[in-house]
Amino acid sequence: MERIILGIDPGTTIMGFGLIGVEKSKMNFLLLDELMLHKYESHAARLKRIFVKTLAIIDEYHPDELAIEAPFFGKNVQSMLKLGRAQGVAMAAGLYRELPIAEYSPKKIKMSITGNGNASKEQVAAMLQHLLGLKEIPKHLDATDGLAAAVCHFFNSGKSQSTQSVSSWAAFVKDNPDRKL
Amino acid sequence: MERIILGIDPGTTIMGFGLIGVEKSKMNFLLLDELMLHKYESHAARLKRIFVKTLAIIDEYHPDELAIEAPFFGKNVQSMLKLGRAQGVAMAAGLYRELPIAEYSPKKIKMSITGNGNASKEQVAAMLQHLLGLKEIPKHLDATDGLAAAVCHFFNSGKSQSTQSVSSWAAFVKDNPDRKL
Repeated sequence: MERIILGIDPGTTIMGFGLIGVEKSKMNFLLLDELMLHKYESHAARLKRIFVKTLAIIDEYHPDELAIEAPFFGKNVQSMLKLGRAQGVAMAAGLYRELPIAEYSPKKIKMSITGNGNASKEQVAAMLQHLLGLKEIPKHLDATDGLAAAVCHFFNSGKSQSTQSVSSWAAFVKDNPDRKL
Repeated sequence: MERIILGIDPGTTIMGFGLIGVEKSKMNFLLLDELMLHKYESHAARLKRIFVKTLAIIDEYHPDELAIEAPFFGKNVQSMLKLGRAQGVAMAAGLYRELPIAEYSPKKIKMSITGNGNASKEQVAAMLQHLLGLKEIPKHLDATDGLAAAVCHFFNSGKSQSTQSVSSWAAFVKDNPDRKL
């Protein structure tokens, strides 16, 4: 693999992880995983689990980059503080392993993958299934948000100028008519 | 030392660290340190510095417990998200080293140390100087907030029931008339 991208959607009740590998500018699905946090009673136990899990994935798959879904607005200061902590803990694992981190808003991720910033979770999941050749749509749609962040990063980064400015799957197809995914 | 307590005030521009050792129920000053974060340009660079610094202090002094100053209310969701990230990154270092974490609100810390939940930074610093026998009041008052968190945790944790319920320095002195600090 030329590049391996780890995508994370850090939440306080469910955390989605997705890994894609890039070979000759083509995405390959590697991993879709999730962390169910509601079973951990204390806030500290949840944060610890997030750190340990993120570090374990990094140390097993050695990603080159970390992309996280990062909402910048929320309902209230309390929920944003909790979300910030979950993000911070996941980011700490990436920073500890010297990974560059890219942040994308939920809207940007939906836009990059479906061409619609207000796409539903089902639409995003269906497009991910198509893009990555997944056999079936994942059961937990929340878990796909991490994978979506990784795919969004692939569309918005990349070595060539043409892929850096790509903002949607539709644009990507248009720019890469001969690419088979 | 029977116990070593690391106190942290995680901020987004300055981060205060304080270490105290406890020997025969007496506090001993070990370290007052600060991290000036404004010199780091990117948010990610700041978070990384927080993680590395916190882990370095833990690995050098081997504290048994971590106490952090944690405001639960803030001006707006944006600032709380940033604060949550700074907290999360510092907590991740503690969780990674298996430290139990205690959180105290700024008001609780001021109350524990000065007997007044609305005490000024100067009052808190002066009381810390007195309690820990510091030769001079620290230059950066923001940096003392980490030390204050550690001292607050000493007053509110402790092995005996009598110290667990202590909520202020005045009450502590009253409960421990023969203690020399």
